[in-house]
Amino acid sequence: MIDEESLGDITLGSTVLGAGGGGDPYVGMLLAREAIRKNGPIALVDVEEVPDDANVVFIAGTGAPGVLIEKLPRAAEYERVLLELERFTGKKFDYVCSGEAGGLNGITPFITAGALGLPVIDADGMGRAFPALDLVTPTLYGGSTTPMVLTDEHDNTMYLEAESNLWAEDYARAATAASGACAAMAIYPMTGAQAKAWLVRGALSLAVEIGRSIRRAREAQVSPVQAVVDGQRGVLLFAGKVEEVDRRNEGGWTMGTAQLSGLDEDAGRSLVLNFQNENLAAIRDGQVIATTPDLIMCLELDSGEPIPSEEIRFGYRVAVIGLPADAHWRTPDGIALAGPRRFGYDMEFTPIEEFVR
Amino acid sequence: MIDEESLGDITLGSTVLGAGGGGDPYVGMLLAREAIRKNGPIALVDVEEVPDDANVVFIAGTGAPGVLIEKLPRAAEYERVLLELERFTGKKFDYVCSGEAGGLNGITPFITAGALGLPVIDADGMGRAFPALDLVTPTLYGGSTTPMVLTDEHDNTMYLEAESNLWAEDYARAATAASGACAAMAIYPMTGAQAKAWLVRGALSLAVEIGRSIRRAREAQVSPVQAVVDGQRGVLLFAGKVEEVDRRNEGGWTMGTAQLSGLDEDAGRSLVLNFQNENLAAIRDGQVIATTPDLIMCLELDSGEPIPSEEIRFGYRVAVIGLPADAHWRTPDGIALAGPRRFGYDMEFTPIEEFVR
Repeated sequence: MIDEESLGDITLGSTVLGAGGGGDPYVGMLLAREAIRKNGPIALVDVEEVPDDANVVFIAGTGAPGVLIEKLPRAAEYERVLLELERFTGKKFDYVCSGEAGGLNGITPFITAGALGLPVIDADGMGRAFPALDLVTPTLYGGSTTPMVLTDEHDNTMYLEAESNLWAEDYARAATAASGACAAMAIYPMTGAQAKAWLVRGALSLAVEIGRSIRRAREAQVSPVQAVVDGQRGVLLFAGKVEEVDRRNEGGWTMGTAQLSGLDEDAGRSLVLNFQNENLAAIRDGQVIATTPDLIMCLELDSGEPIPSEEIRFGYRVAVIGLPADAHWRTPDGIALAGPRRFGYDMEFTPIEEFVR
Repeated sequence: MIDEESLGDITLGSTVLGAGGGGDPYVGMLLAREAIRKNGPIALVDVEEVPDDANVVFIAGTGAPGVLIEKLPRAAEYERVLLELERFTGKKFDYVCSGEAGGLNGITPFITAGALGLPVIDADGMGRAFPALDLVTPTLYGGSTTPMVLTDEHDNTMYLEAESNLWAEDYARAATAASGACAAMAIYPMTGAQAKAWLVRGALSLAVEIGRSIRRAREAQVSPVQAVVDGQRGVLLFAGKVEEVDRRNEGGWTMGTAQLSGLDEDAGRSLVLNFQNENLAAIRDGQVIATTPDLIMCLELDSGEPIPSEEIRFGYRVAVIGLPADAHWRTPDGIALAGPRRFGYDMEFTPIEEFVR
């Protein structure tokens, strides 16, 4: 069950899993907390408990990061989006699920679940955040984004049947822009059997665990950064101070680089982070030391506070950590879909375990 | 009935009614002609013959003018778009109709009608062409663009329920861009009773009549320009040579101005045409002499060939003619919706009858 405390842990943990992107979960948390205060804790069920013939769907928010922070989404959109998918498909959905546990969308399924009294599955389609609709594990197994529904705060509703997940991404991105850059989606309808085969298991309890480890380390006055790295088979890639950030909005994405100079053991070294919403590659002294699909994330050096690419700026003292991507992403198909080449980098995937300090 | 000859007349006449925009009807004509050759002439019925409880819908192509000329649309999209609207609404549609008789969309309903064996209503929602979905006469009476369907050549299908016709325009424009700037739409589902009250009657037979008058004038070696002006209570606003064209693509529209110097009776005068796809205003020697919603159109001076804003260029010798807008547009509501202020001009509507040579 997810109560107020574990919802707070998810909010913190999902920001870490956002790997620099995924949108700020704070505004989503407010809506989910409201639902919990009104209707009580929300059931979080293991995917193994889901009947094979159950109907499952991802709930997700979409928009420009800046707009999502300024506009408080309404719970009404997240309720309506599922009811409209039921009307469109003629199916009743039994479970909602997170498409990406990283960032805002680690929370959004709880808004729908809280409003409609549905359980949330403890799994997602990424185990992190990615900047496009097709970059989910179901794509690796032939899953389809559509039939999908998108709703906005102006009471517009778009229903889509797309020929491929890339086309769905193009139409959904265009509709998101038309909506005023803030919309709710119900995507990737699937069966319980498909959910078991396709999804990243335990993705939401992972977010709870990461959030809780940061919270408890702070309470115990030990290093939250070390707690996350130790708890998640992660790697401390770099400790440094942000010297320069080049950030621009391109096609609805936050694109850019951050340049860091080393601190402590890394004194004298430099690190460059490249991001497209999410951090895509970390380059130390000219050498690539970590790439997508592994997670690259900045945590404030002392407090362990996760720092998204939208917020990183000159003077921040950060730990750059690497966390291994889920096994789905480390297959040849997974690397082909979401590895460095997908984002235009002519480089091989470098598993963070191979990192040498 | 519309046979091959009258289809040719519509193609020419709808280009005149395009008032500079509306898209080239030629590629649509090829598809409709194919359907006529295969299945015979298509019924064109007066709106008075349509039962009050019949289901009627506009069929329209949408896209960037350049792309619509290069890509031959497939009849399959125009068939599928209506079948998908029937699936989405659960209604059977008995008649198709043109949303705008000007340009490509004077023809597109015949593609659907030819494929599905349906009659076309001799009416439209403009009596001309306009550059936005909401600029139709049904908007004046509370008609709704949605439920609507948009289909593309890649087999993507978008279904939309919008809160207003302006929102529908924003979503449809975004989806058109996502499609690759070439898509078919079924919009403004209405009853036969609504069609009678809302539409511009006889809009397609008007296109036939204009096309035929140009064809016959050419055969008789008399002035096609004079034939159009005399036949349609129109006005010859200016005869001139195109000196300079400033044309750019903005937000999917062809925006710009054409500057003309006078010929014959107009020698010594100058005229500026402002266009956003369609010609919006004609300004002679600094004075506005015609504005939207009246139709402003360039015809090649000798041949009467209509010259869209997409094609006008230096050296063309043209007659700039004005045709009165349908009575629906000349009401206060009509002028508020589609008059000069809608397009950002701080000027009153000037009916072309008030033109003094």
